[in-house]
Amino acid sequence: MADYIKASDLALLTEGYELTMADGFMGAGMKDTIAYFDLFFRRVPDNGGFAIAAGLSKVIDYLEHLHFCEDDIEYLKSKGISDELANYLKDFKFTCDVWAIPEGTPIFPNEPIIKVRGPIIEAQLIETMLLLSINQQSLIATKANRFVRAAHGTAVAEFGTRRAQGVDEAVYGARAAYIGGCVATSGVIPEREFGIPSVNTMIHSWVQLFDSEYDAFCEYARRHPDDCTLVVDTYDTIRSGVPNAIKAFNDVLLPLGKRPKSVRIDSGDITYLSKRVRKMLDVAGYPDCDIMASNSLDEHLISDMVSQGAKVDCFIVGERLITSASSPLFGGVYKLSAIEKDGKTIPKINLSENVRKITIPSSKQVYRLIDKDSGKAIADVLTLDGETIDESKPYVLFDPDFTWKRKEIENFVTRKLLVPIFEGGKKVYNEPSLDEIREYCLRQTDTLWDEVKRFENPHKYYVDLSKNLWAERNGLIEKFKGIK
Amino acid sequence: MADYIKASDLALLTEGYELTMADGFMGAGMKDTIAYFDLFFRRVPDNGGFAIAAGLSKVIDYLEHLHFCEDDIEYLKSKGISDELANYLKDFKFTCDVWAIPEGTPIFPNEPIIKVRGPIIEAQLIETMLLLSINQQSLIATKANRFVRAAHGTAVAEFGTRRAQGVDEAVYGARAAYIGGCVATSGVIPEREFGIPSVNTMIHSWVQLFDSEYDAFCEYARRHPDDCTLVVDTYDTIRSGVPNAIKAFNDVLLPLGKRPKSVRIDSGDITYLSKRVRKMLDVAGYPDCDIMASNSLDEHLISDMVSQGAKVDCFIVGERLITSASSPLFGGVYKLSAIEKDGKTIPKINLSENVRKITIPSSKQVYRLIDKDSGKAIADVLTLDGETIDESKPYVLFDPDFTWKRKEIENFVTRKLLVPIFEGGKKVYNEPSLDEIREYCLRQTDTLWDEVKRFENPHKYYVDLSKNLWAERNGLIEKFKGIK
Repeated sequence: MADYIKASDLALLTEGYELTMADGFMGAGMKDTIAYFDLFFRRVPDNGGFAIAAGLSKVIDYLEHLHFCEDDIEYLKSKGISDELANYLKDFKFTCDVWAIPEGTPIFPNEPIIKVRGPIIEAQLIETMLLLSINQQSLIATKANRFVRAAHGTAVAEFGTRRAQGVDEAVYGARAAYIGGCVATSGVIPEREFGIPSVNTMIHSWVQLFDSEYDAFCEYARRHPDDCTLVVDTYDTIRSGVPNAIKAFNDVLLPLGKRPKSVRIDSGDITYLSKRVRKMLDVAGYPDCDIMASNSLDEHLISDMVSQGAKVDCFIVGERLITSASSPLFGGVYKLSAIEKDGKTIPKINLSENVRKITIPSSKQVYRLIDKDSGKAIADVLTLDGETIDESKPYVLFDPDFTWKRKEIENFVTRKLLVPIFEGGKKVYNEPSLDEIREYCLRQTDTLWDEVKRFENPHKYYVDLSKNLWAERNGLIEKFKGIK
Repeated sequence: MADYIKASDLALLTEGYELTMADGFMGAGMKDTIAYFDLFFRRVPDNGGFAIAAGLSKVIDYLEHLHFCEDDIEYLKSKGISDELANYLKDFKFTCDVWAIPEGTPIFPNEPIIKVRGPIIEAQLIETMLLLSINQQSLIATKANRFVRAAHGTAVAEFGTRRAQGVDEAVYGARAAYIGGCVATSGVIPEREFGIPSVNTMIHSWVQLFDSEYDAFCEYARRHPDDCTLVVDTYDTIRSGVPNAIKAFNDVLLPLGKRPKSVRIDSGDITYLSKRVRKMLDVAGYPDCDIMASNSLDEHLISDMVSQGAKVDCFIVGERLITSASSPLFGGVYKLSAIEKDGKTIPKINLSENVRKITIPSSKQVYRLIDKDSGKAIADVLTLDGETIDESKPYVLFDPDFTWKRKEIENFVTRKLLVPIFEGGKKVYNEPSLDEIREYCLRQTDTLWDEVKRFENPHKYYVDLSKNLWAERNGLIEKFKGIK
């Protein structure tokens, strides 16, 4: 592989069987059968109470640019696709309708995050890139949101590029982390392409290069009088790093009338060290010098540090965020939910051998029910398309598995989560800016009860089905189980 | 971000502080100081006994093409780099020497996988991409090798594209999985770019689309008489899927004189189902019809299935391989080990607050000591550059931390693991083909004792230091700890 993957190559960022299916739909005279697919996930990473939707922007970009160049088609022909399919791909144009839950929205298992309606050959072909994009960014946005919640207001900066699973993850992972609430990135491309603020720091090799730590600090301070962050743990934080840093501040910055920005601790017991360092800096006359902390941090370590009173002004997080290390799978799936035939919509189900893998049939909408007084989200309800929920009347929620579990709610407003993105292949969605998405995400997270947001045994948020949808699903299960 | 990242943009696939450092080296008149860096890792994923080196090919590609285009430089200038650095980057040419352990080699913590020698400004700038490439592919190659060992000879195919952390991971993860021993991929780009064999299959939406499972199978069999794999768990594997598959084989394939290829089970208790399905197929006259199994498999599930006699001919693995789900961090680091000054090489150390993070100074070579009779690897020994190990004499290994732990070995041959890749920025390495790397990996894995290869509490393979290197390291530790 000589060069990096170019945009035109994304058409082949798919799996062999998607093309086999395309050829099958073609040959069976079904390619224009109108089909509905749902993209959804089944489990919240880290057994959390909710996830954060992200990746839609990449999906939009992909669908707007999807085309098969001659090289692609020649290659696929050499692998045995039919001439008919080759001709179709030559003139490929995306014509589906797409709805999606906007990026930054808290989302829950089993609800459609993206819904696609259109000729089955198209709707099926795009599966791989849709899944990959949503899985990737939702995973990292969800994880970042946990880190940010753990930090209780202290800034969290994403420094994961070098530990990312590839270039793409480094770039889009940084984007997702920002959506989830991080304040900055170490990556140059995310800063350039998405405008994510960057944070600067010094690294250990700078210190090692000089004959003494003090010399290294002085030289750095001279070169960065306005943005001076020194890494203080190369040899010994308390006995060498911080005293040398203070000396360099005194000897280089003070004469210039400048103040230091921060010191960074990258190893050892951060809670203990940060308190010692804070005192040393305060006593030396630098109460305004921040302390940055890094060293394989995750939400639990951050949470512990905060509760133990660590004196940290910015948590720098790398590998455990950018890989979502403790739970690296988002596990989104893309399933057929209905087809149109002779003017009628026919719901489709996948029963599977695992109860958890049984799908929810039909074209659906997702309603979020929000308590009028508190502004808090009460439940999500999946309905058949076209169904409405009357806000003026009490509404009975019931558990789709244990139907005797019921709850009547009133005094609520509803919000449709799935919004139109493409109509007949044309983009109809006005994409918000990344900063708007981030702000929206922080606000939306605030609409969840603390019980849903906690890390240990979070309260299970209701994702229920409307009576009609439940009846349709159950009917299909009984029908298929009955036949055999 | 309009389009996908282009090759020319990889120059900026770095972190802000790398450029800050570059500017610092420049300004301090140190940019041409000759420095040595080691890329190494500290812990084997999954607490395994060894890892598999992978990603070098991407590193080579990156270093051969690294240059900063005008746009890049304009951007960096807008972010405040000095004119001096901007001019330098304009004419940037990679001139370092690089040594590396070839891809596919079993590797162990703390030994250099890549060693770079050259002007510090260059050697530092390339850090991010080197780490990212090696971390990414070594992680997946290591994991794939675990899956393959667990399968005890049964084929393992990589189907992870849709769950990969981005496009790059889908493509290079497939490459790494193949190096680790997988036989095939589902991805179209890995097949096209790297020649990795692909495996075809049917997916559930095909079955759902038809009025009956039988119709769906017949239509597929008609279209793929030579490569007919049916997915049998859409409704009920035993009561519906397999009987319908057999009927379709009988009704469609037999009259054509064709044999089915396989059936795929994607849910339920694979061990139990595979035995039932095997019998059903055998009784129906299809003992040659393979059984493929998928469903969030990992090395432990595969190992259990194999030991319980599951009748599976190919394990299809997706998300838990492509994300290395149970241990998604490789954690490679890149550390300064020495500089040259006034014609002398000065070793450099990073002491850190964590004992485990203390680095090994000096420019080094890695020797693998191999038992002459068994062909098995006994230990790796890190030496100062230029040191040799006399194969004709007994050699005393000793633990660098617990130096009283000693072992005298004899009757061994040595092999230098670090081989030249670039000399003065010119590639001098003859890259093996991907198939050669994969074969080499399987052979090299065979040189490890079973005790090192087992999953639970593997034997700790010796990675020791030569006496001279140990003395140098200890001297530096004492010097720095003594000063303060």
